Amino acid sequence: MGWGDLGVYGEPSRETPNLDRMAAEGMLFPNFYTANPLCSPSRAALLTGRLPIRSGFYTTNGHARNAYTPQEIVGGIPDSELLLPELLKEAGYTSKIVGKWHLGHRPQFHPLKHGFDEWFGSPNCHFGPYDNKARPNIPVYRDWEMVGRFYEEFPINLKTGEANLTQIYLQEALDFIKRQQAAHRPFFLHWAIDATHAPVYASRPFLGTSQRGRYGDAVREIDDSVGKILHLLRDLSIAENTFVFFTSDNGAALISAPRQGGSNGPFLCGKQTTFEGGMREPAIAWWPGHIPAGQVSHQLGSIMDLFTTSLSLAGLEPPRDRAIDGLDLLPTMLQGRLTDRPVFYYRGNALMAVTRGQYKAHFWTWTNSWEEFRQGVDFCPGQNVSGVTTHSQEEHTKLPLVFHLGRDPGERFPLSIASTEYLDALRQITPVVRQHQEALVPGQPQLNVCNRAVMNWAPPGCEKLGKCLMPPESVPEKCSWPH
Amino acid sequence: MGWGDLGVYGEPSRETPNLDRMAAEGMLFPNFYTANPLCSPSRAALLTGRLPIRSGFYTTNGHARNAYTPQEIVGGIPDSELLLPELLKEAGYTSKIVGKWHLGHRPQFHPLKHGFDEWFGSPNCHFGPYDNKARPNIPVYRDWEMVGRFYEEFPINLKTGEANLTQIYLQEALDFIKRQQAAHRPFFLHWAIDATHAPVYASRPFLGTSQRGRYGDAVREIDDSVGKILHLLRDLSIAENTFVFFTSDNGAALISAPRQGGSNGPFLCGKQTTFEGGMREPAIAWWPGHIPAGQVSHQLGSIMDLFTTSLSLAGLEPPRDRAIDGLDLLPTMLQGRLTDRPVFYYRGNALMAVTRGQYKAHFWTWTNSWEEFRQGVDFCPGQNVSGVTTHSQEEHTKLPLVFHLGRDPGERFPLSIASTEYLDALRQITPVVRQHQEALVPGQPQLNVCNRAVMNWAPPGCEKLGKCLMPPESVPEKCSWPH
Repeated sequence: MGWGDLGVYGEPSRETPNLDRMAAEGMLFPNFYTANPLCSPSRAALLTGRLPIRSGFYTTNGHARNAYTPQEIVGGIPDSELLLPELLKEAGYTSKIVGKWHLGHRPQFHPLKHGFDEWFGSPNCHFGPYDNKARPNIPVYRDWEMVGRFYEEFPINLKTGEANLTQIYLQEALDFIKRQQAAHRPFFLHWAIDATHAPVYASRPFLGTSQRGRYGDAVREIDDSVGKILHLLRDLSIAENTFVFFTSDNGAALISAPRQGGSNGPFLCGKQTTFEGGMREPAIAWWPGHIPAGQVSHQLGSIMDLFTTSLSLAGLEPPRDRAIDGLDLLPTMLQGRLTDRPVFYYRGNALMAVTRGQYKAHFWTWTNSWEEFRQGVDFCPGQNVSGVTTHSQEEHTKLPLVFHLGRDPGERFPLSIASTEYLDALRQITPVVRQHQEALVPGQPQLNVCNRAVMNWAPPGCEKLGKCLMPPESVPEKCSWPH
Repeated sequence: MGWGDLGVYGEPSRETPNLDRMAAEGMLFPNFYTANPLCSPSRAALLTGRLPIRSGFYTTNGHARNAYTPQEIVGGIPDSELLLPELLKEAGYTSKIVGKWHLGHRPQFHPLKHGFDEWFGSPNCHFGPYDNKARPNIPVYRDWEMVGRFYEEFPINLKTGEANLTQIYLQEALDFIKRQQAAHRPFFLHWAIDATHAPVYASRPFLGTSQRGRYGDAVREIDDSVGKILHLLRDLSIAENTFVFFTSDNGAALISAPRQGGSNGPFLCGKQTTFEGGMREPAIAWWPGHIPAGQVSHQLGSIMDLFTTSLSLAGLEPPRDRAIDGLDLLPTMLQGRLTDRPVFYYRGNALMAVTRGQYKAHFWTWTNSWEEFRQGVDFCPGQNVSGVTTHSQEEHTKLPLVFHLGRDPGERFPLSIASTEYLDALRQITPVVRQHQEALVPGQPQLNVCNRAVMNWAPPGCEKLGKCLMPPESVPEKCSWPH
């Protein structure tokens, strides 16, 4: 989902009355970022509080390549990483993830091995349907075991766009909250839905109800579900005791626009890119009675801050034995404080850009290759900016492209390298980049090796369902990451 | 000012807390349009309720040329046009225009000859400074007489951007409202400010206070002023008896972006063009106790509706002896009703496009000429859409380019002419276009002839100030409208 997909961020169709109300009752962050323009690394960053380059959620198969966890991936979240639910356990929290896990689908990466107490959802994206011969359909798990597969027990009608998944995920969320409240247990719910991810889907009551087609229908269903979750918290009288944060794992994909593409508002390009459209995210914090209503914070925020902030809410400290990139946003949310901090835009193993204050410096620019682009794969349709949305990887490390994001959120007008403003901006940015790079210890890359044998052929529980499939011979190979 | 310049429409810097609150207390129109992508024709449309092609606010010097009222223009608002303040007189209203009039600066076009009772402001844009030899500086009027000139008695510092004009205009507005309230007189205030128009200015307390530079400073000052006006209405206990509407006369100019350019949100191009960025406008209706708070209406609205709606509020009917393009929006605002109506996008004498429902059909596409474009004049910087943002006037009357504005607000993906959707859309649009064109009686074009002798050399009142200048010899000539 993109920054521009919410009414409160300017989507003309204004499909999100519940999220807009959530913002009116809480704090809106217009300058909030994910840690990567792609799903898996971004979700890893949320749960570890660390840049994917540290946790291993990147590839070295190519320079600046986006990598994620399709079902042929061999790697996943390393045991050495400390995930938010693992740490929250120390404070007595029960944790559930609903929806897409995406940090590895092999047994050692299972979310219940990494701190979650419950899971309902899938390890991978809902791509498909597959023939269960060349590729198996993606399983849906309840806790330790699969309970079916997408396009089988959990149908997604690609033609009509109908799927009931968001409703199922909503019920899982509501049920979990009710159970924790009844047991007076503190809880962490990671509601990791994926309805706006291609293939975009919505349930029948929402299909055809938006002005934007299927994508808008999916947004409406997500919005409606958020409304129901917040409503339940109020109904259970735990709203003032429950911190809720809404954000997204990457900018809206424009590659499938307009049929299945969302909006990144005034920002450049979308998912897969380190332009603002790929990494600036909608973000709303809600905690009635604590976060004052109707606030807007221009704090540069990050999805990784949710890790540190959540620990802080639980009275815990972030681990001290490793670099943590997330900030505690409580002073921002409760006292309106602003903290000077950089935002690092990584694409795979490459630091593409850095923002500090209003200035963003690009060290590398790339959308995708000419080869892909000529085949019609366009991450920036109708947004060609000469010398910026480049189709070869352009290095600017010696003389970065610098934009003032306040005056020029669309990254269309690089500052003149002869200007004082340019020099001043670099003077701000250069030392934080140097410091970052000198201290950086990249994790072992997890997204280099693929193997068809590790696909979801026979997930735990498949025997009970008679849904085990025969894996092919094991042939490890370098994953191919085209962009 | 552009659609995207308000926080409530998604401007990331969120500089408009007062306008955002106005929207939260009233009704927001995401699909509201001006009648022309340029100031003079658009302001004529507001005050007459008629398309500029009817009132004469266009040129036939070239096809599809934007024309306005620089001070060499000979024409202006014809006497035969009935302006809103003229009609409101019948219901006992006192009317004042504060700011830019722009419907002609010669004596017969004076706003006090067209229904206004008071005027403080200028007849033309605040371009300058001029040398008072080749061109005079633009006068500032109080009612019938000039009281000074821009860059002289009313300084605008082009270097710092400092000018006190919005503050003066604000005081004029507050003073007028107070006087009418004290006299228990119904009133119409047309607060026609121009701080976001190049050269962009703000007063000292606002300069340097936004994240967007001078343009954002100007937006902040306008927002602050709107807040003060609404506050006064509440203070005087006439808020529930006063209908307030905020909108703009054209999309943000992108030609001077980013230094003096605003935001049209996700829409294509800006001022001067008939793409959405040029003509879709911010629009907020506010009438506490009548318009329910926090509403969003997807009614296709027009600046011309303000004419008809204002008459309706005063218990008057629009004139029956002429075509009126404005709708009465009261049923929309008070009962949430939606009316099917087309939006016509004119550029000069050419009907460029029509929107009905979600579909927009372009009959002509043009940004500006290759010649201008090669000189660096770009109305769509960083937004080139092949075959759409064309630099020659492309005719599509036989096979219009059609966009679905819900899925594709940025006009990047024309519908396939082979699709059923395309044919259905045209089936909706074609009859309203035919009907419109068959019934259309174009007014006598007012913006064809220019003459340096008619400039503001010796406006009424200049003698008292010793500021009369000698006009040159009268040489009427065709105005040059390059785009």
